Amino acid sequence: MPHTPSPDLLKRLQKLLGPKGYTGDADAMAPWLTDWRGKYHGRAAAMLSPATTEEVAAVVRLCGEEGAALVPQGGNSGMVGGATPDASGTQLLLSLRRMNRIRSIDPAARLAVAEAGVILENFHHAALDHGMRFPLTLGGKGSATIGGLVSTNAGGTQVLRHGTMRALVAGIEAVLPDGRIFDGLAPLKKDNRGYDLKHLLCGAEGTLGIVTAACLRLVPAATSRATAWIGLASPGEALSLLCRLDAALGRQLEGFELIPHACLDAVLRHIPQTRAPLANDHPWYALVELAGDAGDDLETALQAALADALDSALIDDVVIAKNEAESEALWKLRDSISEAERADGPALQHDVSVPVDLMPRFIAEDPQRLSAAFPGVRTVSFGHLGDGNVHHHVQPPADVDGKAWLDTHGEDVSRLVYAHVLELGGSISAEHGIGQMKRDLLAELDSPARLAALRGVKAGLDPAGIFNPGKLIG
Amino acid sequence: MPHTPSPDLLKRLQKLLGPKGYTGDADAMAPWLTDWRGKYHGRAAAMLSPATTEEVAAVVRLCGEEGAALVPQGGNSGMVGGATPDASGTQLLLSLRRMNRIRSIDPAARLAVAEAGVILENFHHAALDHGMRFPLTLGGKGSATIGGLVSTNAGGTQVLRHGTMRALVAGIEAVLPDGRIFDGLAPLKKDNRGYDLKHLLCGAEGTLGIVTAACLRLVPAATSRATAWIGLASPGEALSLLCRLDAALGRQLEGFELIPHACLDAVLRHIPQTRAPLANDHPWYALVELAGDAGDDLETALQAALADALDSALIDDVVIAKNEAESEALWKLRDSISEAERADGPALQHDVSVPVDLMPRFIAEDPQRLSAAFPGVRTVSFGHLGDGNVHHHVQPPADVDGKAWLDTHGEDVSRLVYAHVLELGGSISAEHGIGQMKRDLLAELDSPARLAALRGVKAGLDPAGIFNPGKLIG
Repeated sequence: MPHTPSPDLLKRLQKLLGPKGYTGDADAMAPWLTDWRGKYHGRAAAMLSPATTEEVAAVVRLCGEEGAALVPQGGNSGMVGGATPDASGTQLLLSLRRMNRIRSIDPAARLAVAEAGVILENFHHAALDHGMRFPLTLGGKGSATIGGLVSTNAGGTQVLRHGTMRALVAGIEAVLPDGRIFDGLAPLKKDNRGYDLKHLLCGAEGTLGIVTAACLRLVPAATSRATAWIGLASPGEALSLLCRLDAALGRQLEGFELIPHACLDAVLRHIPQTRAPLANDHPWYALVELAGDAGDDLETALQAALADALDSALIDDVVIAKNEAESEALWKLRDSISEAERADGPALQHDVSVPVDLMPRFIAEDPQRLSAAFPGVRTVSFGHLGDGNVHHHVQPPADVDGKAWLDTHGEDVSRLVYAHVLELGGSISAEHGIGQMKRDLLAELDSPARLAALRGVKAGLDPAGIFNPGKLIG
Repeated sequence: MPHTPSPDLLKRLQKLLGPKGYTGDADAMAPWLTDWRGKYHGRAAAMLSPATTEEVAAVVRLCGEEGAALVPQGGNSGMVGGATPDASGTQLLLSLRRMNRIRSIDPAARLAVAEAGVILENFHHAALDHGMRFPLTLGGKGSATIGGLVSTNAGGTQVLRHGTMRALVAGIEAVLPDGRIFDGLAPLKKDNRGYDLKHLLCGAEGTLGIVTAACLRLVPAATSRATAWIGLASPGEALSLLCRLDAALGRQLEGFELIPHACLDAVLRHIPQTRAPLANDHPWYALVELAGDAGDDLETALQAALADALDSALIDDVVIAKNEAESEALWKLRDSISEAERADGPALQHDVSVPVDLMPRFIAEDPQRLSAAFPGVRTVSFGHLGDGNVHHHVQPPADVDGKAWLDTHGEDVSRLVYAHVLELGGSISAEHGIGQMKRDLLAELDSPARLAALRGVKAGLDPAGIFNPGKLIG
């Protein structure tokens, strides 16, 4: 168990990091002690903001001497409270935001080295300045940092083609719990020297190492795109369409988002300057995006593939964006779902995955199970069909006090959802991670074999438990 | 430290596994106690051949009670003695060969589940029967097993496009050192439930878990191929050519092998029915292969790209195979290099990697360093340029007793090679692993940070050290 940092330790940390790197001031720390959604609130003995990898290592060594707990934090935009300290006030918040240098960009090798505190959107721009693109993006791009994205193995809307963060990380630099610096930045395509620490640190939520920098893969900047909004009958048809498009356009297919009519309806009701893309309502929609080089005639290819799908009645209607502004308008509908839903009242959110081919079954059957157990609840599933990952939200019955109802029944509702996910071999956290939100859930629902292995790895690498205690399985 | 198995334990294992699954007979065990190259010789208290995952788990639990050591083995075709027990006679050889069932092949989902003992070549054939291809192949395909390929994160000649085994593993089933079965076979595209055990077990050489089955990715069977043999001046030109072909033909480029003239010369001298593909000798050659669908006109695309390269004098000459037989003849030249080299006398082999863009520099400078330190030695580098991985072989001076010279100087030669590799941020084992061959080398040369982390993981998962002791870092 980690210990309360002594006044002497705090003094040494303050001396090490200087005024820019150390604060114990409650007001200065406040913005970083609550997660962005305001769900988790913590306290900290101090906030440490080292500027270099060596400073991070020195911090870890000093804290290690006393067994003081460190909670690493990037942009504070996580979804599961993974970067929020506990309420004890004994933990030290370790902010990586000052480490915000892009150390190198090499367009020929298609690689860049970015420090942990680099904000995703800034990294996008820097890559574009070199004619390259970093093909991972998500809602929090204006605050999310490279270190946090690596540590949570972030996903987003381009996973279909480019994979999650894990697939884009060619190398990692991290400080380990013993205070040593692991320099694994060299982008080796083949390296069979035993256990792959890169993959181990990716998605470890700061419980095994403090990621200080990453070598990241770039792709040539896409110079053309084509976007379509499609009306169809069910997730089954959407999956068939996805398979067809993948066969016909594989290399260019970059996004495939599934959206139920209820979500579009909420967006149209709550979000200004939005309008329905198709003349008629359909039970479900698919938002499809192709990205390619200057030479690719994406629109013609997409038109041909979708005309086939219309002819065979696989889909019911379609509109293809005629220009960038129309593309943006279609994506705005997708990106506004969460905001519109919040305006509609409270909902219980589940970020789950199942094998892709079981997704239509899950989406069809889960609302039935929930309605049978909790009459009147409404369920919407939307998101990354091609990744086997939907955001599965359950709204209380229309005629009750929603918040009170969720306080009473929420846990049982989620239990039913997760049981169904596990029945299908799925995951209770597809892309958001475990953090503190799902820590107890993981301990309860995951297999004893896997839990024992996770605990073994944690104990082996961080025997004193000083890295992000209380998160994941700590 | 593991213990000698008691007579009682052996009796219980014998009873558990029956006559097909247990033998203590020296003659029956003999073929499996020496590696295929005859470099490593071991002894075993018994050979265990369980037929099911449950039997493997029962074996591990029984051995765990006494702390008896298990050495897992697949096709016994590894390169570093990783599957050969030590000489003590106290270890138990755990053969996975009886677990040779392909549990499922799903062409629509492009996935198959194969047990650990399935031989790679048989798996290739089974996939082809379903119109699919498993895109990893290597010299030992007739004996190498799925479990061994996963546990060594095997590479081969198609890594450029499809990645090493790690990239093809969608799920893993394994027995962990505590005797529990980890069922991670569900092919989830997104799963952020903490540490990725799949990636941890891949390449762990049986020191963390006994892989009993894997869910593997398939691709549609390639229906067309095009193969070219190219003469060029140096590895630098070869790398430029690779970049050009990747830009022009990316999706189809499947193989790019670099071959020095000395290797071709050895093949022509020693291997019957081989002939030089080009009229004149060139310092270096590249063997390029494209693979694609029925609709792709690969030959025309390859011709166009190579004509450009000829025009700009990037390459000096080229021949494109006119049919399957000519393709096979070109690949035979590449695949015969090791055999021809053996006929030429002893050589010291190094399987190393560096970042791709540093490879030409390594290939150019390393022979100079070696010649300066050991006058008269000859160095050849050949293989997977696009993966940053060459097989780097050093032959003794021509005028000495080669074997005796290597016995005296071999270790120092290798030390120089590895020091150079590390200087460039490379790996002392690109695709063959560590096993017993490079265990001490790893302990000496790898960074203290990484070694401590590897040891921590091992201690956390296998505190009694019963899985493959004496290998990797055990």
